[in-house]
Amino acid sequence: MLEDFELYGNVNRAQNFIDFIKPGRFLFSFVISYTETSEIPGITFAGADRDSIQFTPPADAEYLHYGYCKTIDKIPMTPDGKPTPGLLTKTALESASISHLTINAGSKVTPQLPFIESGLPFGKNISIQDAMTDSIVSHAVEYGQIIGRSLASLTDCLIIGECIPGGTTTALALLKAFDYDAKVSSSIPDNPVELKNQIVTSALQRVNSEHPYSIVAQIGDPMIPFVAGMLSSASSVSKVMLAGGTQMAAVLAFASKIGFNEESTAIGTTSYITNDKSANFKELVQNIADIPVLSVDPGMKNSEFSGLKAFSEGFAKEGVGAGGAIISSMIKTGNNSAKFLELAEKEYRRLFT
Amino acid sequence: MLEDFELYGNVNRAQNFIDFIKPGRFLFSFVISYTETSEIPGITFAGADRDSIQFTPPADAEYLHYGYCKTIDKIPMTPDGKPTPGLLTKTALESASISHLTINAGSKVTPQLPFIESGLPFGKNISIQDAMTDSIVSHAVEYGQIIGRSLASLTDCLIIGECIPGGTTTALALLKAFDYDAKVSSSIPDNPVELKNQIVTSALQRVNSEHPYSIVAQIGDPMIPFVAGMLSSASSVSKVMLAGGTQMAAVLAFASKIGFNEESTAIGTTSYITNDKSANFKELVQNIADIPVLSVDPGMKNSEFSGLKAFSEGFAKEGVGAGGAIISSMIKTGNNSAKFLELAEKEYRRLFT
Repeated sequence: MLEDFELYGNVNRAQNFIDFIKPGRFLFSFVISYTETSEIPGITFAGADRDSIQFTPPADAEYLHYGYCKTIDKIPMTPDGKPTPGLLTKTALESASISHLTINAGSKVTPQLPFIESGLPFGKNISIQDAMTDSIVSHAVEYGQIIGRSLASLTDCLIIGECIPGGTTTALALLKAFDYDAKVSSSIPDNPVELKNQIVTSALQRVNSEHPYSIVAQIGDPMIPFVAGMLSSASSVSKVMLAGGTQMAAVLAFASKIGFNEESTAIGTTSYITNDKSANFKELVQNIADIPVLSVDPGMKNSEFSGLKAFSEGFAKEGVGAGGAIISSMIKTGNNSAKFLELAEKEYRRLFT
Repeated sequence: MLEDFELYGNVNRAQNFIDFIKPGRFLFSFVISYTETSEIPGITFAGADRDSIQFTPPADAEYLHYGYCKTIDKIPMTPDGKPTPGLLTKTALESASISHLTINAGSKVTPQLPFIESGLPFGKNISIQDAMTDSIVSHAVEYGQIIGRSLASLTDCLIIGECIPGGTTTALALLKAFDYDAKVSSSIPDNPVELKNQIVTSALQRVNSEHPYSIVAQIGDPMIPFVAGMLSSASSVSKVMLAGGTQMAAVLAFASKIGFNEESTAIGTTSYITNDKSANFKELVQNIADIPVLSVDPGMKNSEFSGLKAFSEGFAKEGVGAGGAIISSMIKTGNNSAKFLELAEKEYRRLFT
């Protein structure tokens, strides 16, 4: 199992984190949200077409739970039919019998299953206006803290994954506003760096405050302060694994403004993120906080299916907390990448043949 | 501690239940709901006046969480100022550090805190029309099962409490429709038996089906099928303590139609219910299922405060899962009634002086 992991940053802390959670209970929380920034043409491929992007977060939640979607006919896919990284998450959670709960933190469409409601509205398009008000940010942090405390008290390791299409752009904007030299990953191999930078640049021109709450209100999205709130309370109760790439770096950047327990926190992601030459994920995290990065190679490059192989080729390198879910499942079961690939291919076959 | 408990029914099973949960984790789930039956004058005192009844479920949830309410100014009270039994629940949960989650299963007003959303509408007034449709009942059972399974996987003992003003009347109607000889408790010492029987009689005239789903749709409320769904799935994963009186007998009656694991289930309530001469709670439960009744004397008769003493005099004998919460807290901490009274008086002083 460990041969498929890479540990970055504070390696001692990473090893302690793994040793602590191995015999314990895991809980995967899936935070769904939305930013109208995703409606800018070309910014995300998290949906078969532009109109279906809003259905991707609830559909991912439904797929994780039911094994199929209710809001849409098929599972979420790119326009050319590559499946959601939720396929990896679902395979991981099922193989290790890890429970999960869905949390609605501003999704435009609510999922057709029971979920924890936070009362947050979706975020506005940061290329033209503020994402939300300061009081929405306060609400997001407060409710995130309540939920984080509750869920952490029920487990030894709270894994937090997210789905917010277009979220790498808001994450990039927030990281830049906080003066981090961030180069973000994207779900598209030809990362539309130009377009993202244009949006971020115009968004940053609106920033007129030094206050972290106002900054995230102006150029962030609801997921960021909400998950940061979860982290800030949960990390004083249990271990917390932020499952994701660039978006979780933005969460971490905001969380370091409001405070959290670094000793109980790790980021878990895929090697497709940590090896991404167009981004600088490992260095970015190290610059933000002294927490370890756990990275797993999900082994998809060896798949017989092009839809799975694509993950290793830069499509949807991460999402729906896939990396953290795979890491947790491997820690719990002792499975390695070869075994995980076998299970993911079985799930792929179930869905598509 | 055990000297304050009475065990009824299958006493061996009761003792095994206690021994099993003592070293484990507890989770209190608080299900809030609503039936328009509560708007019939004289049927419930769960609110300072008729207009405020709809705020009692969310306000109880807020009080459990924050220690004060957001939806209303004070904590829920009877018209003459007797406090909600939630005071006992809150004292119990805090003294034993038992986590809790709020679940919205058809409350007319949503609480101002994060909660699990089930998507259920409130129930209609059964004295004049069906409470809901069959498909709402199916939805309630299905979503209850999903939530029950999720929460039970996070704990060793899932305690389920409820707040649905007017719910003893719908419970009575369902029990009668299922041919149980039920005499229900009420939150009022001069139990308005006449009025309740009138409502139940007219409601029963509408029953035109043998199917349990149709019967609960015609004369029940959304809480009953929802909590029965929770019980049916949760009892195959963890122990489940139904915390309440007559309403939980109705849940049990419906749950025995859809199936649940009797060996993992108990009812926890107060001695104010089990000693109520106007009702027949213990016998009723025995007639429905082979599960133990755990009853606790919360010791309120010895209180210096009339507001607490009233619980022992037949006012709000149970509610907000008070009995089951007190039992769980005593099992976990080893506290007895005297100690519990001391803690409840401290909470009473915090609220009212």
